[in-house]
Amino acid sequence: MIKVTVLGRASAKPTVNSHPSAQVVNVNEQYYLVDAGEGVQQQMFRRGINPLKLRAVFISHLHGDHVFGLFPLLSTLGLCGRQMPLKVFAPRPFGEILEYHLRYFDPQLPYEVEWVEVDTTRHQMIFESKTLEVWSIPLRHRVPCSGYHFKEKYPELNVDKFKITKYNLTIAQIVAAKRGEDITLEDGTVIDNSELTYRPFEPRSYAYLSDTSRSAVAAERVKGVTLLYHEATYTREFQHDAKERGHSTAADAAQMAVVAGAERLLLGHFSSRYKSPEVLLEEAKEIFENSALAEEGETYTV
Amino acid sequence: MIKVTVLGRASAKPTVNSHPSAQVVNVNEQYYLVDAGEGVQQQMFRRGINPLKLRAVFISHLHGDHVFGLFPLLSTLGLCGRQMPLKVFAPRPFGEILEYHLRYFDPQLPYEVEWVEVDTTRHQMIFESKTLEVWSIPLRHRVPCSGYHFKEKYPELNVDKFKITKYNLTIAQIVAAKRGEDITLEDGTVIDNSELTYRPFEPRSYAYLSDTSRSAVAAERVKGVTLLYHEATYTREFQHDAKERGHSTAADAAQMAVVAGAERLLLGHFSSRYKSPEVLLEEAKEIFENSALAEEGETYTV
Repeated sequence: MIKVTVLGRASAKPTVNSHPSAQVVNVNEQYYLVDAGEGVQQQMFRRGINPLKLRAVFISHLHGDHVFGLFPLLSTLGLCGRQMPLKVFAPRPFGEILEYHLRYFDPQLPYEVEWVEVDTTRHQMIFESKTLEVWSIPLRHRVPCSGYHFKEKYPELNVDKFKITKYNLTIAQIVAAKRGEDITLEDGTVIDNSELTYRPFEPRSYAYLSDTSRSAVAAERVKGVTLLYHEATYTREFQHDAKERGHSTAADAAQMAVVAGAERLLLGHFSSRYKSPEVLLEEAKEIFENSALAEEGETYTV
Repeated sequence: MIKVTVLGRASAKPTVNSHPSAQVVNVNEQYYLVDAGEGVQQQMFRRGINPLKLRAVFISHLHGDHVFGLFPLLSTLGLCGRQMPLKVFAPRPFGEILEYHLRYFDPQLPYEVEWVEVDTTRHQMIFESKTLEVWSIPLRHRVPCSGYHFKEKYPELNVDKFKITKYNLTIAQIVAAKRGEDITLEDGTVIDNSELTYRPFEPRSYAYLSDTSRSAVAAERVKGVTLLYHEATYTREFQHDAKERGHSTAADAAQMAVVAGAERLLLGHFSSRYKSPEVLLEEAKEIFENSALAEEGETYTV
């Protein structure tokens, strides 16, 4: 199961109640931080998420509103005595920035921060666990920028226990059935695997696409995504600014959801010009009904 | 008049409701930022303080919890179109850190950030305006660290209007009296200046001493301070840790207030181990009755 906790939905300028971009993606109790705007550590405390649990960090791009919160977080993890290395996936030149940070502020961090360079021009699997794949999604922003696509792996087949009894299957046959094989009974009858097994669930996926102009290529690459988070900095009337600054309108985000065949769309990265971002939601819903505004502190189950 | 707004009172590890060190000192509607822990820009928004109004920034030392909020603030000031140069007083090697920040995150800032190096070994006036002096106060911490002493200048003498009538003073005589001169009347009588003039108010002062071990020298240097803000990271039982880490207990802070002859003491920089810092206040009050806990968002008039 994938759970996404939104910690910030503001664009570059934070407001009184709105933090810059940051999310925690929880996949089967493995925690991943996606972007790290200022204040992310405190936002995690507020939501009861222990930063020591973080398994890896994914940074979309090196604009301050997506990364300034990472450095205080790294320091705090040191104060908390973290010893497990922490992988940070980020585009170049993150390694240089990290080096400066460590030299001036954390020369004696008790754990290793391992930078993994993300090639923002390539769509590829960059991280894998037993149950999860994370893919990079090239985006169109003013600086090199990558989206991240969290995809559950196909779950193992379960063997129907009624069929085990019915056909009196041996342990060896059950194991073979779990592997997807057909089973030949003692009397020579072949039982098709599909009669014996079922998938406990359909794999789900979550895509984080921010910051970016509308990109049909990116939409194709997250085809069939269950939950799509897409930036929606502006309304349509600022289409020109959006394009010029490498951002999207709410209508752009909704069109992305349509092209991607997403089940649901979550809008974020709102310009501070919108005191109430309802207007962005209305714009998106005209095109893609199953849209919602990302709410800080909310957890979305995919 | 000096007004101090506390924006953060946590030590290194922030908590759900408690931010790292930052304050805004307002002297006759000139705004100065003292330390800049993470989240300081948002804390300013929350308190209705426009960051564009900042005239200068004073950083005590280069531990992250006193400076990580400065870089996002510098970026936001750029987005807001600041053009006025901004002076940042900070110890070495702030210049190098600033350089790398500007290189990676703000290569096109529309205003200049002028670093003024603070010599943390010297007690000297580092800033002066028409009504204010700011003095550096060498502190005892693990890294070079300076406190800041905001001192109102002596206000101009006012001439008592009843005396003007009584002695039928000319404009030239009034001006001379304001300068502090004695006045010789037409009949040769000399009127002592003190009979003609009065100070509209006694100059007040505010000292920010954080982070530091107890320092009798520092206390001497802020002798007669009106409001003393002093760090009180620990209670007395952690005296040993306090000393080892270059910090103070609440008792240390109170003793500082006694030696300095302060009117009032404000305690801050609390360790996250104290869920409720009342215990720190009690410890301080045993030694210096006019003590208070710094409250985030509160403004203290000096």
